[in-house]
Amino acid sequence: MGQDGDAPGRVTRRPRNAEATRAAILAAARACFTRESYEQVGVRDVAAAAGVDAALVMRYFGSKDGLFAAAIGQDFNVDDLIAGDRASLGERLARYMLRKGEVQGAFDPLLALLRSSADERVAAVVRDAACERFIQPLALWLGGDQAPQRAGLIAAYMLGLAVTRDVIRAGPLITGEIEPLVALVAPVLQSYVDGETIAPIAPTQLVAPV
Amino acid sequence: MGQDGDAPGRVTRRPRNAEATRAAILAAARACFTRESYEQVGVRDVAAAAGVDAALVMRYFGSKDGLFAAAIGQDFNVDDLIAGDRASLGERLARYMLRKGEVQGAFDPLLALLRSSADERVAAVVRDAACERFIQPLALWLGGDQAPQRAGLIAAYMLGLAVTRDVIRAGPLITGEIEPLVALVAPVLQSYVDGETIAPIAPTQLVAPV
Repeated sequence: MGQDGDAPGRVTRRPRNAEATRAAILAAARACFTRESYEQVGVRDVAAAAGVDAALVMRYFGSKDGLFAAAIGQDFNVDDLIAGDRASLGERLARYMLRKGEVQGAFDPLLALLRSSADERVAAVVRDAACERFIQPLALWLGGDQAPQRAGLIAAYMLGLAVTRDVIRAGPLITGEIEPLVALVAPVLQSYVDGETIAPIAPTQLVAPV
Repeated sequence: MGQDGDAPGRVTRRPRNAEATRAAILAAARACFTRESYEQVGVRDVAAAAGVDAALVMRYFGSKDGLFAAAIGQDFNVDDLIAGDRASLGERLARYMLRKGEVQGAFDPLLALLRSSADERVAAVVRDAACERFIQPLALWLGGDQAPQRAGLIAAYMLGLAVTRDVIRAGPLITGEIEPLVALVAPVLQSYVDGETIAPIAPTQLVAPV
């Protein structure tokens, strides 16, 4: 991306402040998109919040879409979560999702999505990030029967926790201790990691007694 | 609600066309809120779609907020889902959530929420409906240890399925047969209905082998 005025044909180490500037713009974008809808956020606002010129933001990210995609992309990276042993992946995913709200100033791409989902371009950016950066690599890593479905259901439950806590603000999921919730969620996610049948009876075998 | 011009002090059966008109307005509202954000939908639009006067809509529902609340409320009613035997509730909830998209012209209050969640008044209406009409009565019905948490997690997973299918449009959850997905989701929801521990090992007892 961006040439930053490097002399052509010469391999130069990008000056530290270019990386720092890029990071500052991304941080400002995340803050802006957390507070307001996609439509409401202007490149100018982000530039002002980052203390740079709007033209510089465009040079780094090409467009508001590109800036949004870069801001969103960082949060749908499954690699950090997968890292570790397989037997505790369900627990790591559950704890990440239930504790991420504790990080001060955290950017929630889901909230950005919620606020902007009427805008089909925005929905498409988030959709691509969720599928290409989370569900697909997770499915590949899981392997086995119905891996894409299991990965999709893990994503569904995790997204649902975010919606229920951040938007619905359902009391039972936002008050009280987090670890008992982790203990209720982790085994479910782990069952999808393992690809095991969870319940002793298949739903199609159920006979309604009433 | 609305007196509809009944003579005061006299118990009269509301004429059939008043109920039919109310239903027509609600159906029109659901169609409008499905297509557009809360902000974009006007009482006039809903009235026009229902073939009635805007003043009549206001007489029935008091305000745009009231109209939205009435439209949303119908879909967060857990009573119909609870009806039936307890052993197959997980299956009923899973199938309802995974098959509701097949109903032509169905109103999805979650999509309405997504499109309008930047508007705090709208978020509050949806929040109240989800908590008071779904999570709280479900928790009461479930009973037992951690009933509010279990009900909240059931709601979270169900909402997550809707987001992942309707907004993220994750391939593995929208292509292919529905029943295999029901078979993966139902046991999880049933485990929260039953209040059983799902996995044989508690997450805190996990030892990383890698």
